[in-house]
Amino acid sequence: MEKLEVLTKEKILEATEETLKRFGLTKTSVTDVANALDVSHGSIYRHFKSKAELFEGATEKWLDEKIIKPLTDVCKDSSMVGTQHLKTYIKTLIELKRCYAREDEELFKMYAKVTEESADLIHNHVSQITDQMSEIICRSSINVDDPHQLARTIFQATTRFHHPAHAYEWKSPTINSEFSNVWALIENGLS
Amino acid sequence: MEKLEVLTKEKILEATEETLKRFGLTKTSVTDVANALDVSHGSIYRHFKSKAELFEGATEKWLDEKIIKPLTDVCKDSSMVGTQHLKTYIKTLIELKRCYAREDEELFKMYAKVTEESADLIHNHVSQITDQMSEIICRSSINVDDPHQLARTIFQATTRFHHPAHAYEWKSPTINSEFSNVWALIENGLS
Repeated sequence: MEKLEVLTKEKILEATEETLKRFGLTKTSVTDVANALDVSHGSIYRHFKSKAELFEGATEKWLDEKIIKPLTDVCKDSSMVGTQHLKTYIKTLIELKRCYAREDEELFKMYAKVTEESADLIHNHVSQITDQMSEIICRSSINVDDPHQLARTIFQATTRFHHPAHAYEWKSPTINSEFSNVWALIENGLS
Repeated sequence: MEKLEVLTKEKILEATEETLKRFGLTKTSVTDVANALDVSHGSIYRHFKSKAELFEGATEKWLDEKIIKPLTDVCKDSSMVGTQHLKTYIKTLIELKRCYAREDEELFKMYAKVTEESADLIHNHVSQITDQMSEIICRSSINVDDPHQLARTIFQATTRFHHPAHAYEWKSPTINSEFSNVWALIENGLS
């Protein structure tokens, strides 16, 4: 009983992350997570209705910690302004995604899978990013009627560089110059 | 022996297409294609070294007929000029992809799979498209040093709307207005 009382969502999600890293995405089951915590799989289902829900929770936590937290720091950085600030923000997003695709492979795969399957979760994640981009646009001298719409448009025009479905293209030796060219076109369009 | 003599690559690819439509991507084997042609699977391997090579051949044929052929007509259409011609070209590409994702599901799935696995084939396909875009740019009054690079940049900035990995997003009711916004930003950047 003692174990059940201290079993929190947070602890389950931490164990899910560890288990995924150890066994890989395709081989991790709810029972593996339960074993890692030394509880029954029923205890896990008290907190997460299904394996899909458990993986969604783990993805949400991972995105918050690994992507949104460092992006929030860039958004709040008052040493930058205007399109330069916007470019640094998008470049940080791209570099974070590229880094985790390489160094945190199993969790990145989970995120890529959830991206296609859980529209609400990803919609919220993208909204957090475009809200911050919109904040940067509002603080800049960019002349625009609808900063939110412009933020979404810039986010979508740079899809190839941050959407997980394109991770296989990020190893290309020309990927950085390709981003520079797309950004130059966008920046030209902003002025 | 008679059958072997008339068995051409073209016939095998046609049979592959038919078999894929009937059995689906995951269930189609080389033997199924051989059965459809009433030949041994060894006869198929005389023309295509592996199942992967057979599917690549079928994808190449499909892309040429369904995507490149109609795009070539748009490219050659002398009734349009400049950014309007370029927009029509990209919109046609997007509409063709969207149409086949919906109406030719199994062959579209094959194409999506080959996209991730066969870099050379897709590189050639993309080059055909960006060469035609470059042709349109050269005939326009768009002032640019490197028309090929600009063509690639515009192709990449519109990835979300034509890359098969995003097919699941094309059903969104806002997809057309999202493309209009991205295109407006690009067009602004071109002037």
